[in-house]
Amino acid sequence: MSRVRGTSAGGGEDPDPRDVREPWSRPDVATLTPDRMMAYIRARCPWAAAHTHRTLAPYLLEESAELMAAILEDERVGSAGGSATADAVEAELADVLYQVVFHAALLDERREAEPGDTWSSLQQRLVDKYVRRHPHVFESSSPVPIADVQRRYQDVKAAERAEGSAAREPSAEVHAEAADEALRILSDIRETMASRNRQD
Amino acid sequence: MSRVRGTSAGGGEDPDPRDVREPWSRPDVATLTPDRMMAYIRARCPWAAAHTHRTLAPYLLEESAELMAAILEDERVGSAGGSATADAVEAELADVLYQVVFHAALLDERREAEPGDTWSSLQQRLVDKYVRRHPHVFESSSPVPIADVQRRYQDVKAAERAEGSAAREPSAEVHAEAADEALRILSDIRETMASRNRQD
Repeated sequence: MSRVRGTSAGGGEDPDPRDVREPWSRPDVATLTPDRMMAYIRARCPWAAAHTHRTLAPYLLEESAELMAAILEDERVGSAGGSATADAVEAELADVLYQVVFHAALLDERREAEPGDTWSSLQQRLVDKYVRRHPHVFESSSPVPIADVQRRYQDVKAAERAEGSAAREPSAEVHAEAADEALRILSDIRETMASRNRQD
Repeated sequence: MSRVRGTSAGGGEDPDPRDVREPWSRPDVATLTPDRMMAYIRARCPWAAAHTHRTLAPYLLEESAELMAAILEDERVGSAGGSATADAVEAELADVLYQVVFHAALLDERREAEPGDTWSSLQQRLVDKYVRRHPHVFESSSPVPIADVQRRYQDVKAAERAEGSAAREPSAEVHAEAADEALRILSDIRETMASRNRQD
């Protein structure tokens, strides 16, 4: 028996986000996960549909600057801010996360994968990498001094490099070019913020 | 009956990551989620334990620059890169995500919440916000022209602002200061990349 797919409440699965036959079905927004929400947005929003990794990249820098602002404010206000400045940090983290989920949706499409596959695989990749880089956490039975931690971390990184990886690493030139581009974008963001400042 | 907690395979729950009594228990790394992995790292790694939102902030800029490099390389190589440059983009996204999960763990501790509570709440916050900002996706039955999309998006933002928020928004001055700080950090990252370049 095939599983019933529909918009019925209570256990019915949401329809395929990529199905844009009209009239559009309405997913149950109460149970949407970030990756599935993103797949609907990508399929149905012309602004989102036009984005590429490259056109999206500046937004991550903007959100990183916004997060920095929330952190500086949180630090300045300290405990006098109660939970409000911590909430502001969380709000900015959500915006950073949106960028990650957005890029992941683009990778799903390129790979002709199911919506959410890249979101899952990058979480698994994260866990695999950082567990591997923390043997002093996951393979030790007691605390390791910080000097040893740093040495072990470098050892694991060297071993990873020796093993190689399926991913193609950009050259040092591309890294420098990317840093220049990021600086240019951030300068523009800074100008926008400064002019907003003058209007206040 | 209380649920059995232990390291036993097959359904046994991992122990509390914050329990650092020795000998340390070993979580089942095959089933670790990013938020729980982070809680173990934060509790057991002296380098991670020393971090604050402020000391962590530069790493997000560094990872954003690394992501930019992977994207430029992916764009340059195009389809000739096969899946290798897409994999490199995914690898950098995982590193960006690690920063989000790290900040979320700090918030859990400040709030004396359970490990992972902030990771969950910021995903819910993300879904709530971006569903609200995309009525043309989640409340429409057919495509909306891009001009209308942009107008509606601004309307929703204005309504959000009028309603106010529990989060304390940093002032325009703090935003400008944050952008300056981000620029300074990125300049340092650029210098590191350029000197690495000369050594190659």
